[in-house]
Amino acid sequence: MHTEARIPELEVGYDVPALPGMREDEIQTPCLILDLDALEANIRKMGEFARANGMRHRAHGKMHKSVDVLKLQQELGGACGVCCQKVSEAEVFARGGIKDILISNEVRDPAKIDRLARLPRYGARIIVCLDDVTNVAELSAAAQRHGTQLDCFVEIDCGAGRCGVKTTPEVVAIAKAVDAAPNLRFAGLQAYQGAMQHIDGYEERRAKLDSSFAQVRDAVEALKGEGLEPELVSGGGTGSYYFESASGLYNELQCGSYAFMDADYGRVRDRDGKRLDAGEWRNALFLLTSVMSHAKPDKAICDAGLKAQSVDSGLPVVYGRDDVTYIKCTDEHGVIDDPQGKLKINDKLRLVPGHCDPTCNVHDWYVGVRNGKVEALWPVSARGKAY
Amino acid sequence: MHTEARIPELEVGYDVPALPGMREDEIQTPCLILDLDALEANIRKMGEFARANGMRHRAHGKMHKSVDVLKLQQELGGACGVCCQKVSEAEVFARGGIKDILISNEVRDPAKIDRLARLPRYGARIIVCLDDVTNVAELSAAAQRHGTQLDCFVEIDCGAGRCGVKTTPEVVAIAKAVDAAPNLRFAGLQAYQGAMQHIDGYEERRAKLDSSFAQVRDAVEALKGEGLEPELVSGGGTGSYYFESASGLYNELQCGSYAFMDADYGRVRDRDGKRLDAGEWRNALFLLTSVMSHAKPDKAICDAGLKAQSVDSGLPVVYGRDDVTYIKCTDEHGVIDDPQGKLKINDKLRLVPGHCDPTCNVHDWYVGVRNGKVEALWPVSARGKAY
Repeated sequence: MHTEARIPELEVGYDVPALPGMREDEIQTPCLILDLDALEANIRKMGEFARANGMRHRAHGKMHKSVDVLKLQQELGGACGVCCQKVSEAEVFARGGIKDILISNEVRDPAKIDRLARLPRYGARIIVCLDDVTNVAELSAAAQRHGTQLDCFVEIDCGAGRCGVKTTPEVVAIAKAVDAAPNLRFAGLQAYQGAMQHIDGYEERRAKLDSSFAQVRDAVEALKGEGLEPELVSGGGTGSYYFESASGLYNELQCGSYAFMDADYGRVRDRDGKRLDAGEWRNALFLLTSVMSHAKPDKAICDAGLKAQSVDSGLPVVYGRDDVTYIKCTDEHGVIDDPQGKLKINDKLRLVPGHCDPTCNVHDWYVGVRNGKVEALWPVSARGKAY
Repeated sequence: MHTEARIPELEVGYDVPALPGMREDEIQTPCLILDLDALEANIRKMGEFARANGMRHRAHGKMHKSVDVLKLQQELGGACGVCCQKVSEAEVFARGGIKDILISNEVRDPAKIDRLARLPRYGARIIVCLDDVTNVAELSAAAQRHGTQLDCFVEIDCGAGRCGVKTTPEVVAIAKAVDAAPNLRFAGLQAYQGAMQHIDGYEERRAKLDSSFAQVRDAVEALKGEGLEPELVSGGGTGSYYFESASGLYNELQCGSYAFMDADYGRVRDRDGKRLDAGEWRNALFLLTSVMSHAKPDKAICDAGLKAQSVDSGLPVVYGRDDVTYIKCTDEHGVIDDPQGKLKINDKLRLVPGHCDPTCNVHDWYVGVRNGKVEALWPVSARGKAY
């Protein structure tokens, strides 16, 4: 005799913004929607690029934090696995069945190191970054304790100014220590130049990378001299992946934003001077919002403010409309300049968020839409997984 | 015969950042911590002010989004109930047992209106704001459908430039329509001047309110002339509550940030020119972060970036330290200027967030600490409830 599990009914509005099968105009706002045609096109295009250029593509899951999107990137785009930034994100992807996981970041807290060293038990390859030789013994002890193996990248700071070492001797010292440590394996280099991704001009971006590549080349040569040729050299983002692919140095890309796009990447220019969102990539992510007040004739107030998005990289852009402009963002409201008074109460607008990563991180759900219908409801599986 | 419910064990790191009983230095970062002594002192102080000035205090739950914090505001601070901005937040507070709930915002979407009209069934008084006479029939029809009563505030835009009507004839027209509509009750005025709360100078803030108060006085007088004296006139925030209390117009305050404080409100000056966080209120909310890389001697990298906070009102401030400065915020990292190289790997810092409301909204938990121990773990109950 057993009791049947009761699955509570999901309540639209309280639990979820929409359910599959609903019409797009029934979605409760504000919420994130994904144009599935655009998303699949972006994913296929990056997959084809990677294949044609002999590159592995390790999709950056810190952007979308979604096991469902990552699986689509594997299925349609041939992604080899995921990279993410936090142990708690890696736990979500490992539990979700992803088998090749890079934490493109350092892990130093003893409890986090312990959690990290348990992760290979999910049957996944786990790679972590190091920028300090004293981290080697910490990681090795934890992996021995759990009877697991951790693959290790040495992180080079090639211009982002965050984590990572700056000199080849430091790279070599850490790689050698890893190579000598039980239960660790030296697997390659993390060399992501984050600071140049958002420079608008193509040639300016290329120039920024020249010195980064020189740094990486020097490190690779020195490692080869020590018999420690890196299996993987990993890096590259939506604003640079063609440069890493042509460098002869890298064999793994880490692009994330290409799949969704945002207003900040949209302003970046391609080789021909065209905006990235005007050909290379399609806007697949939108913050759907509704007009909920229009008491002043030239200003509409919508329901998407600071708790529905991050404005660190600028305000959102109203998609497909040049007659109305999002001009101010407060906690729960957006002020829309509507000089001709075109908007009506409950009109819906698609906003292109200024910055996709931290915007996705405030939402619990992605609503996938196609042909005016809700087709998918995907949890933002690693939302809030920051610790 | 019944099966026993199995409560799954919470895993520190994956599910929660800490558990009660842990030492403060075992908390997994980044996460929000509440100094319970400071929080309780702030709550008691505001309660005493409201009592001494004959004001109701309806604590703004949109700031903390926590049923637990709201209950503390009722128990220790005599708060009469809660205000919030979204139907989904009101649902959380109603389910949490709060009995007097104001949605200090308009509700226009038909599905949201339907959810709103069901809420009085929880045994709570539900108040909603209107700024459009066409909203009256929509709310009335829904309340009749569900056999409930909705109390209604007319919202005056007294300077915030968001929702609300600007003229007394509009206020009177909406109030009369509410008064005549079945299942609605005219309960008063919403008049919150949000735009002046963060002006640093005390006299500049007072001056901004003079014209707001003239607007509200004119509306109150006109309503009295129609036999519609408002039961409640509600407004006021952490930067202004003494002005509303002395106005002879308002009888209900809506302060929120006073309980936690943040760096932006900290810069605001009181009547004596002192910072608000230097006497009037104590910093109770901190974003706890750990140093996780120090590969460059003068820069420490900590684990709290854009996904652990909102930087719309500026960068966080390192609490209690003038030797180190948070100078840059990227997705998952903060760059800490550490010119004397004082910080070590795994050192913890307490950051005062730039803006508390949208920072709380990215976290799932508050970790309450006292005397170096974790005493409470409270969910951010209405986190992400934006729709």
